[in-house]
Amino acid sequence: MAEAVDGCVRHGLEAIGLWRQEVAAQGLDETVALVGNAGLRVSSLCRGGFLTSPDFEADNRLAVDEAAALGAACLVMVVGGLPGVVPGEPLGEISRDLPAARARVAEALAVLAPYAAERGVRLALEPLHPVYCADRAVLSTLGQALDLAAPYAPETVGVVIDTFHVWWDPQVFEQIARAGAEGRIASYQVCDFLSPLPADVLLGRGMMGDGVIDFGSLTGAVTAAGYAGDVEVEIFNADVWAADPDDVVSTMKARYVSLIEGA
Amino acid sequence: MAEAVDGCVRHGLEAIGLWRQEVAAQGLDETVALVGNAGLRVSSLCRGGFLTSPDFEADNRLAVDEAAALGAACLVMVVGGLPGVVPGEPLGEISRDLPAARARVAEALAVLAPYAAERGVRLALEPLHPVYCADRAVLSTLGQALDLAAPYAPETVGVVIDTFHVWWDPQVFEQIARAGAEGRIASYQVCDFLSPLPADVLLGRGMMGDGVIDFGSLTGAVTAAGYAGDVEVEIFNADVWAADPDDVVSTMKARYVSLIEGA
Repeated sequence: MAEAVDGCVRHGLEAIGLWRQEVAAQGLDETVALVGNAGLRVSSLCRGGFLTSPDFEADNRLAVDEAAALGAACLVMVVGGLPGVVPGEPLGEISRDLPAARARVAEALAVLAPYAAERGVRLALEPLHPVYCADRAVLSTLGQALDLAAPYAPETVGVVIDTFHVWWDPQVFEQIARAGAEGRIASYQVCDFLSPLPADVLLGRGMMGDGVIDFGSLTGAVTAAGYAGDVEVEIFNADVWAADPDDVVSTMKARYVSLIEGA
Repeated sequence: MAEAVDGCVRHGLEAIGLWRQEVAAQGLDETVALVGNAGLRVSSLCRGGFLTSPDFEADNRLAVDEAAALGAACLVMVVGGLPGVVPGEPLGEISRDLPAARARVAEALAVLAPYAAERGVRLALEPLHPVYCADRAVLSTLGQALDLAAPYAPETVGVVIDTFHVWWDPQVFEQIARAGAEGRIASYQVCDFLSPLPADVLLGRGMMGDGVIDFGSLTGAVTAAGYAGDVEVEIFNADVWAADPDDVVSTMKARYVSLIEGA
């Protein structure tokens, strides 16, 4: 955490997206102090969710509390896959009822949204690429996320637009416009979709420009939809993780300038 | 080919879906004779497509001719990915303009549909799971396939509903109903979506019951939509391919009876 915060400061990045396990490892109070002293905005806390599990409630309330303490712009919600499916593990007893799993997400949101509203935390529903529908998120499209958010105030429930997850969607441009019109874009995240995918699809993300995504059109649509918040670069990639952090940030900044900024 | 045809006959299967490279290896005339003498229906010929390539035309006309000669119920069209992307190979010069690639598919279809109509061949547009959007098919949803088919007579351009590709789609039930109402269901294909996926996502298909798909609800929707044609079992899976063919067919029949038939 200290290294990441320091890297942001040295490279002139004004905001950082935090992951809960790193916050826990550092300690919540110490993290609040670290990012506060560094003058960084917390663009998001990642992640709450897995709402399709029966025991979703306690940990998500805790995640909301942490997001409030950190002053995070939103709490990213990865809603979970089919009940019983554990990412990376062989199938045991599972439910194959996808509409029911989606209904459970809506029910869980009804429990959590009032709690988030009380604490001034914005829940950000993240549609994940359909390749993760079984094991990580039954929320597969931006349109679906916006339908799910509709009953709540935009400042309480928004959506995450992550290029990796939405680039393929035939309805993506109209749904980005809709997300903007409804005031629900809580975060814009960028990373590329690699082709061919590596053996572990979870790590199939790449530095912008290394894959197949047209960042100009998607970023232009998000900007045209009125989003003026932080842009988060989120790359799950074994090579990126193994590389020198300063090199990664330098490359990221260069790619950001050439592919994202001004689009 | 001879072994596959013989296996169908011995196991009481009434129809077979053929792949073009196997037909070519056996010889077209000889294949026509083999399936004819065996009394099998050809449920589909797989595959035409890759319409996003500039040189799509000659090979697709040939595929139409082959489908006509075989009396195939349809010619499955896998429409191709982003121009320049080659499945399994590192990215070279590619186009990242996805809307343009999708427009090229529509233009190519306008060239091929009249040719198919003249020869009495039904083109069957197959939406592929979005994980293949970059390298195999920019056609990602059933709704998109139906929109693309709309300008043509249903007997000339239909759609394939493959459980592996569509199971995650929040709109799948309404689009299956629409496909039926529009008379466009050319083939119903079943196989399961494995979780976790194997290293090569192309081979992430499993025998029905081995993955996460609820075959009852999808099959029920296809049946309710009026489809009464052959159901094709199509499984890309290294273990299935390596197993004894008679065992595979026996398992397939048992799973078909328990999971598909009567749904």
